[in-house]
Amino acid sequence: MGSLSLSSDEGKPIKCKAAICRKAGEALVIEEIQVYPPQAYEVRIKILCSSLCHTDVSFWKLDSGALARFPRILGHEAVGVVESIGEHVDGFKQGDVVLPVFHPHCGECRDCKSPKSNWCTRFCDDFLSNTRRYGMTSRFKDSSGEDIYHFLFVSSFSEYTVVDIAHLVKISPEIPVDKAALFSCGVSTGLGAAWKVADVEEGSTVAILGLGAVGLAVAEGARLRGAAKIIGVDLNPDKCEIGKRFGITDFVNPALFGDKTISQVVKEMTKGGVDYSFECIGVSSLMEEAFNSTRTGGKAVILGMEKRALPINLGSYDLLRGRSICGPLFGGLKPKFDIPILVDRYLKKELNLDGLITHELSFEEINKAFDLLVEGKSIRCILWMDK
Amino acid sequence: MGSLSLSSDEGKPIKCKAAICRKAGEALVIEEIQVYPPQAYEVRIKILCSSLCHTDVSFWKLDSGALARFPRILGHEAVGVVESIGEHVDGFKQGDVVLPVFHPHCGECRDCKSPKSNWCTRFCDDFLSNTRRYGMTSRFKDSSGEDIYHFLFVSSFSEYTVVDIAHLVKISPEIPVDKAALFSCGVSTGLGAAWKVADVEEGSTVAILGLGAVGLAVAEGARLRGAAKIIGVDLNPDKCEIGKRFGITDFVNPALFGDKTISQVVKEMTKGGVDYSFECIGVSSLMEEAFNSTRTGGKAVILGMEKRALPINLGSYDLLRGRSICGPLFGGLKPKFDIPILVDRYLKKELNLDGLITHELSFEEINKAFDLLVEGKSIRCILWMDK
Repeated sequence: MGSLSLSSDEGKPIKCKAAICRKAGEALVIEEIQVYPPQAYEVRIKILCSSLCHTDVSFWKLDSGALARFPRILGHEAVGVVESIGEHVDGFKQGDVVLPVFHPHCGECRDCKSPKSNWCTRFCDDFLSNTRRYGMTSRFKDSSGEDIYHFLFVSSFSEYTVVDIAHLVKISPEIPVDKAALFSCGVSTGLGAAWKVADVEEGSTVAILGLGAVGLAVAEGARLRGAAKIIGVDLNPDKCEIGKRFGITDFVNPALFGDKTISQVVKEMTKGGVDYSFECIGVSSLMEEAFNSTRTGGKAVILGMEKRALPINLGSYDLLRGRSICGPLFGGLKPKFDIPILVDRYLKKELNLDGLITHELSFEEINKAFDLLVEGKSIRCILWMDK
Repeated sequence: MGSLSLSSDEGKPIKCKAAICRKAGEALVIEEIQVYPPQAYEVRIKILCSSLCHTDVSFWKLDSGALARFPRILGHEAVGVVESIGEHVDGFKQGDVVLPVFHPHCGECRDCKSPKSNWCTRFCDDFLSNTRRYGMTSRFKDSSGEDIYHFLFVSSFSEYTVVDIAHLVKISPEIPVDKAALFSCGVSTGLGAAWKVADVEEGSTVAILGLGAVGLAVAEGARLRGAAKIIGVDLNPDKCEIGKRFGITDFVNPALFGDKTISQVVKEMTKGGVDYSFECIGVSSLMEEAFNSTRTGGKAVILGMEKRALPINLGSYDLLRGRSICGPLFGGLKPKFDIPILVDRYLKKELNLDGLITHELSFEEINKAFDLLVEGKSIRCILWMDK
């Protein structure tokens, strides 16, 4: 176990438990590791809880290519408390409640300073390093002294982790910790996509392909904006009920429509297509369906990660009818600016997150959490570090 | 010849000359036709001059499909004077100087009232009718009494034409008529794309594929916004010099780069890609190159019309790096709102249009104008009705 006193290990490695992925698709192994002190611009945090996201599962399964690296500590949707800080760290101090976020926000580059983009020019083009400013340098070693790979600059399946300040957001300690974790990735992505990227307006029509946490958050965002029709598309019939709680007005199970494509069904339901469509799964053919589901002049927002990197085929004539398609990461949000705003709206009870957390387990049960998500039984499973 | 007195033919057909396209790709024939009076919401205008646009050439060549219709009066970039008005026509009176515009702006539908879109929901989805509110009803008859097809709701290769008020913009009579015509399509499209769709900002980087009137107008728009690097791409080496006058800082002739793709060349010139790219030709492979020329987080704006309707293949992973691609018609501009603003900026000498008009001919020489454009010798050729 790591130190319970937050300050006693400052400047020294901490021994603690982490769930290590040693081989693609194999059960994670809880091992004792060492977490080294934060370097300049880094913060070492004690993880309070993580929630399991599909991207963790995707990278757990990934067995080839530059992104497949083992041994690795996965986990990127989490909340923690600052244990110690490195040099040149402004704005964070011991005891702060923080969200680590895979999407960087240096705050200083041209894009970070621009209202038009959340694409941190300085840091966004590197997904392969372990640490943001130190390349493949790892802050983790296993008991044999071998380096362990980081994951998306977060690696929250560890009692302690080291995160660059460009990936860290301070939040209000008033928010329940489990709900806070949701803002670290999926929920923020969905809300941002609805509010900032699509800018859904009252009376508009929306189609959401995939009703996981991201898709349901899109629905919640569209509902709060007063969208007239919010079509949820999912092969899992259970998503109909949960979808309604987040504003889904019409549920489409594509399996029940025979040879009709999703876009054909959506177009029939909306006299020619929706104003905004969202792909929240990560399959190129569904990205095409999302695009084809929009009306002329409509917008398709792609949020799912296509792991096989298959291309997207668009009709040029369809595009040239005023349509657009975009693939914003993190729902177009600037983490440090926008996450505190979302948390504030939650605290003011303007946002509904009830029902997204379907399971809660102790960290030791992490492999069960993977099973639940892979089997489509959970939306978000919280993994508590101290329970 | 049509009546020189603007009012004497009100309510009656006008006999006048028009250039008729009787068969795809064959020389236009100047014939005497009858132009019927405007119906409700329509205006009959006396054309002062037209400028020839590539879209006229494309439809002149088009020999199959629903869009290929003959006999037809082409021409859609023009300026005219109101000769008479139909019922329910507000805002236009005899003698007004007007631009007919292929892109509708009803002013009343949801999209026309929204600041987010220039996609007139009410009228935009119909490109096949002759008249906006009367389907295949034509206002033109040839000497044998046969209906002649309209083109893009404008048909300016006629001394008189009838245009729906949703396609008509009143402009200041102070602007020279030939320059005014340019705002009817190409120049507005390019400026709108740079200013409204891409919203090019100071210091940004831009690539423009195709330096015709639209591409040069994009360059002018980017130049006025202070773009740091404006890369013009064209197979015609003559476009290098003219491009510089509109702000092109770097000229790329793809023929001189061997096996390298345009996007490879552009990426090498810009350390990874431009902020904004514009396809101004209408070839799907170049639309893909435009997309691939953008940096992560960049935006591709497709302005050229792909006549063969070939699909566009995008890398899903490229899209999911914060990129977007859109195909706004008319540069995202709302004609009635935005054209008068552009005209005003021209009158204030804030906009450079010098060099776009490379040729001026009399209407009778219209086939020569087609030759010049097809041979790549002209950018815009003005066809004067009364010279």
